[in-house]
Amino acid sequence: MSVVALLQHNSVVGDIHQNSIEISRLATIAASQGATIAVTSELAICGYPPRDLLLEKDFVNRCIEAIKGIISPIPILIGSPLNPDGIKKLPSNGVIYCEGNGKIKELYRKQLLPTYDVFDEARYFNKGTELSTIEAPDCSKLGITICEDAWQHAGHVPSDYGIDPIKQLSKISKQLSYSVNLSASPYHADKKNVRIDVVKSAAASLKHPYLMCNQIGGNDDLIFDGRSTISWPNGDIMQAPAWKEAILLVDLNKPQLSKVIEFDNYKKYDGLIIKEAKITPSDDNFKNKDEDLDLLEAITTGLRDYCHKSGIKSVVLGVSGGIDSAVTAAIACRALGPGAVHGISMPMRYSSKHSKKDAKELMNTLGAHYHQVELSELQISSEEYLKELIPINDPGVDPIYLENIQARLRGLTVMAYANAYGGMALATGNKSELAIGYCTLYGDMCGGYAPLGDLYKTEVYRIANLINREAEENGEEAPIPKSTIVKPPSAELRPNQKDEDSLPPYESLDAILEDWIERGIVNTEYDEKTVTWILQTMKSNEHKRWQMPPAPRVSKRSFGQGWRQPLAAKK
Amino acid sequence: MSVVALLQHNSVVGDIHQNSIEISRLATIAASQGATIAVTSELAICGYPPRDLLLEKDFVNRCIEAIKGIISPIPILIGSPLNPDGIKKLPSNGVIYCEGNGKIKELYRKQLLPTYDVFDEARYFNKGTELSTIEAPDCSKLGITICEDAWQHAGHVPSDYGIDPIKQLSKISKQLSYSVNLSASPYHADKKNVRIDVVKSAAASLKHPYLMCNQIGGNDDLIFDGRSTISWPNGDIMQAPAWKEAILLVDLNKPQLSKVIEFDNYKKYDGLIIKEAKITPSDDNFKNKDEDLDLLEAITTGLRDYCHKSGIKSVVLGVSGGIDSAVTAAIACRALGPGAVHGISMPMRYSSKHSKKDAKELMNTLGAHYHQVELSELQISSEEYLKELIPINDPGVDPIYLENIQARLRGLTVMAYANAYGGMALATGNKSELAIGYCTLYGDMCGGYAPLGDLYKTEVYRIANLINREAEENGEEAPIPKSTIVKPPSAELRPNQKDEDSLPPYESLDAILEDWIERGIVNTEYDEKTVTWILQTMKSNEHKRWQMPPAPRVSKRSFGQGWRQPLAAKK
Repeated sequence: MSVVALLQHNSVVGDIHQNSIEISRLATIAASQGATIAVTSELAICGYPPRDLLLEKDFVNRCIEAIKGIISPIPILIGSPLNPDGIKKLPSNGVIYCEGNGKIKELYRKQLLPTYDVFDEARYFNKGTELSTIEAPDCSKLGITICEDAWQHAGHVPSDYGIDPIKQLSKISKQLSYSVNLSASPYHADKKNVRIDVVKSAAASLKHPYLMCNQIGGNDDLIFDGRSTISWPNGDIMQAPAWKEAILLVDLNKPQLSKVIEFDNYKKYDGLIIKEAKITPSDDNFKNKDEDLDLLEAITTGLRDYCHKSGIKSVVLGVSGGIDSAVTAAIACRALGPGAVHGISMPMRYSSKHSKKDAKELMNTLGAHYHQVELSELQISSEEYLKELIPINDPGVDPIYLENIQARLRGLTVMAYANAYGGMALATGNKSELAIGYCTLYGDMCGGYAPLGDLYKTEVYRIANLINREAEENGEEAPIPKSTIVKPPSAELRPNQKDEDSLPPYESLDAILEDWIERGIVNTEYDEKTVTWILQTMKSNEHKRWQMPPAPRVSKRSFGQGWRQPLAAKK
Repeated sequence: MSVVALLQHNSVVGDIHQNSIEISRLATIAASQGATIAVTSELAICGYPPRDLLLEKDFVNRCIEAIKGIISPIPILIGSPLNPDGIKKLPSNGVIYCEGNGKIKELYRKQLLPTYDVFDEARYFNKGTELSTIEAPDCSKLGITICEDAWQHAGHVPSDYGIDPIKQLSKISKQLSYSVNLSASPYHADKKNVRIDVVKSAAASLKHPYLMCNQIGGNDDLIFDGRSTISWPNGDIMQAPAWKEAILLVDLNKPQLSKVIEFDNYKKYDGLIIKEAKITPSDDNFKNKDEDLDLLEAITTGLRDYCHKSGIKSVVLGVSGGIDSAVTAAIACRALGPGAVHGISMPMRYSSKHSKKDAKELMNTLGAHYHQVELSELQISSEEYLKELIPINDPGVDPIYLENIQARLRGLTVMAYANAYGGMALATGNKSELAIGYCTLYGDMCGGYAPLGDLYKTEVYRIANLINREAEENGEEAPIPKSTIVKPPSAELRPNQKDEDSLPPYESLDAILEDWIERGIVNTEYDEKTVTWILQTMKSNEHKRWQMPPAPRVSKRSFGQGWRQPLAAKK
């Protein structure tokens, strides 16, 4: 008789009250569609990751009180921090059984606490030591796990926890109808199949359905794709959509009657769509037909949620006619609508005519706000002003400072506009240039968020082509000018400057960077001199990355929380 | 017969080769002074904290190979990462017994891995599960522990590890002559006495001397004060100096013959001074007579090591005549010598005459390089230029952008000078203004390092007075002008602007901030409206702190690694 609703909800970190209202609403909708019990994602009451909010004195109590206040016609298993157990001093990452009438029961404390990459759970939580089951009012008995708890079993963890909660559950699995997993499993490229593998592995060992509810949405640098997944022991799979709030309503007795209820995230419940949930046989490898589309959705979600959740109403960026600013502008329009996007073209004496034309064409096609200010005069005044401090013919002077001034005057302009009108500046840099420091600190690195900060340059080109293809398929004009895509990349900070004057071609640069950053391998395909230069340049530009704006994490190793090199003095 | 040398060494993170050479040199000096065995600080071979360097494939092997290469007349217990044990995938934080002739033996794996505040050890290491002892060639048998291993026993840990290595050792302590502890215990104000408590507690339980060797020096945001400490079971204490490389040479049979060998850190072994090491009875509370001097040494060491270890030869900063830039300049001179310090005065139309005079006087007294450029004209050009983009009478415009432009033009000037001459810019901001965002991102926040970034404004004043007092005691002129200290603080970005127009008086601001940041308490002494305004302003300015330069951590909770609030959308 169990009809289980996985509430794939976009929690706002720290907004406990609003999260509790949303959970209540989703559960009520699920009940109206026949659900007998509902399950949220991990720490849904406070959003994931709560980080140092957990150290605030009343934080855990506020979460628990909010759960007590949830009204729901069906019981809900809610992810919540729990107060310390016994002599322990840290809270647990747990699950609360909420009857929906003020009565609650603490059920489970997560046993495996990931502390690698973007995860820091051993810092904030004490691990639980006991498995947990509950009998639902529909008389089915279910096992409870949280995210990482299932990953050891499938072998997808960097260390060995010495404990395997799935194995523990499998010993009593005959008494259980199904098990659930409350997850906050962030997106990165290629992760989808790994997650399916985890869910299938648990279902196969437990010999009953395994239901994973995953968080959707962006929280700072972390982005969650949703894709809540159910696996049956034979490997059959059912999945909620990616990049959308949704309820996956699975009828465990008659799976063919299962439904997906989809929401448009930012119109909330007006846009409710009910679809049939399909079972996919185990031999379907769930490979996304278009990995690039997933990447585009990821960075769009990251920017959209960063703005929505922080109360940012508009964004502003410098548009140069180059590929990075073009893609950033297009993504901002996709995330926030063109009315919220301001592009400023700031040509000066080294800017090509083409660049000015391309920038204008881009913003016009996008339908966003376009501004142009001629920078040359201020640039010349600045150089004049600095002569007093830095004599122009001093042989001890590195002329690079002149290029940096241009980038910084542009940063100053974009920030002035943002400060004057209350918007947020966007940094347009990509991972390739951030990696080797081919960017100006306090210049083009200015901004509250860097949508492309975790995309290699070659990926930026792929996303540009996809954005144009998507527009054309919708019968619209492709926004990114062809010349922006085909012309050789240039910072235009010197006459006739090209990126390739200073850098290896992006194809080899990216291959070498990816090998080192994502796989820890020194590339041996390209010539040793180039590889050595790139790795040295990376190390000597690390200081810039300590001050870069947050960027949505889409690769295995971003420059954010997951890339913590010591800064000084590495050899 | 045991004469043990604690090698209080300033390891450079990642510079394995140089660290191994230094360890060898120190051990050789210790042997020449009669030592029979030497002990380093925690992870001395690679420096602490190695962070993501540990994820590089050959890193652990490189450490071990370097230890094999160490030549020493006496054996050395060296802190080193160890390769994973058995099925584990992560390395351990361990101790290697180095005979000094190419022969080594892996001895111990740290059992308690701190993962709170500035520590991230569960992220990088697998914990050991066994205690370890070794018989030295002098026939004494000793127990081995690493840093945190001893802290559980004294109760100074935020959680309960469920394991107590000191208790383990105490069961076999009758077989042992003494025990050692290899530490990398960072400085923060008030920590000295806690550390002594830990060492005394271990010695009392083990009923034999407990010898802690601690790292000295700065590594990025972490700074280590040294103060290697020995405690006897009766509570007697012997300590190596703070803020200096040194060897504490303890004769365990005749403690009165013990010595301290001090080095001038940056002249290395030329400045070798041998002193008698004094035993202090247990009832001396080791309270520093001048906590402020400790703070001053801490930030000086932080800046000096950041520069030396990163190969930075000179620094440049804006000098306004205000207290923050004055103290920053004085500390830079203290750390690097006045010849390496460049101060730029950039007065414009709102700068007071006094400010210009004070800035010049400061730099002259310090004997550092002084430059002055008049900013007003460029400021006016910039405002003219921006009129095209931001109409001057637009009622929707927040005039704050004009103040920010001034700060950003100054940032641009300082960065241009740094880029032109290859120096590093220093940010002059203090913790009070960073906390509430009373500073300009990409303006006065520009810089590779922020020496005062973890000092509250009232602490900056105390340090200013101390710097002047120190100079006078040395028969020199007090560098910080009296008017800089007594005039009301002002950003001088508007006519007649005072900090107190926008902020509560610093005395109350700092009290409220300290309660919240360091103790997690909402202050109830000051009026609720002020307190609420401060805490709200802190939250809404969090984005700035994600892009602040590294600052030496001197408080319990700095804005660096130990203060990781989620950025978006907290309520």
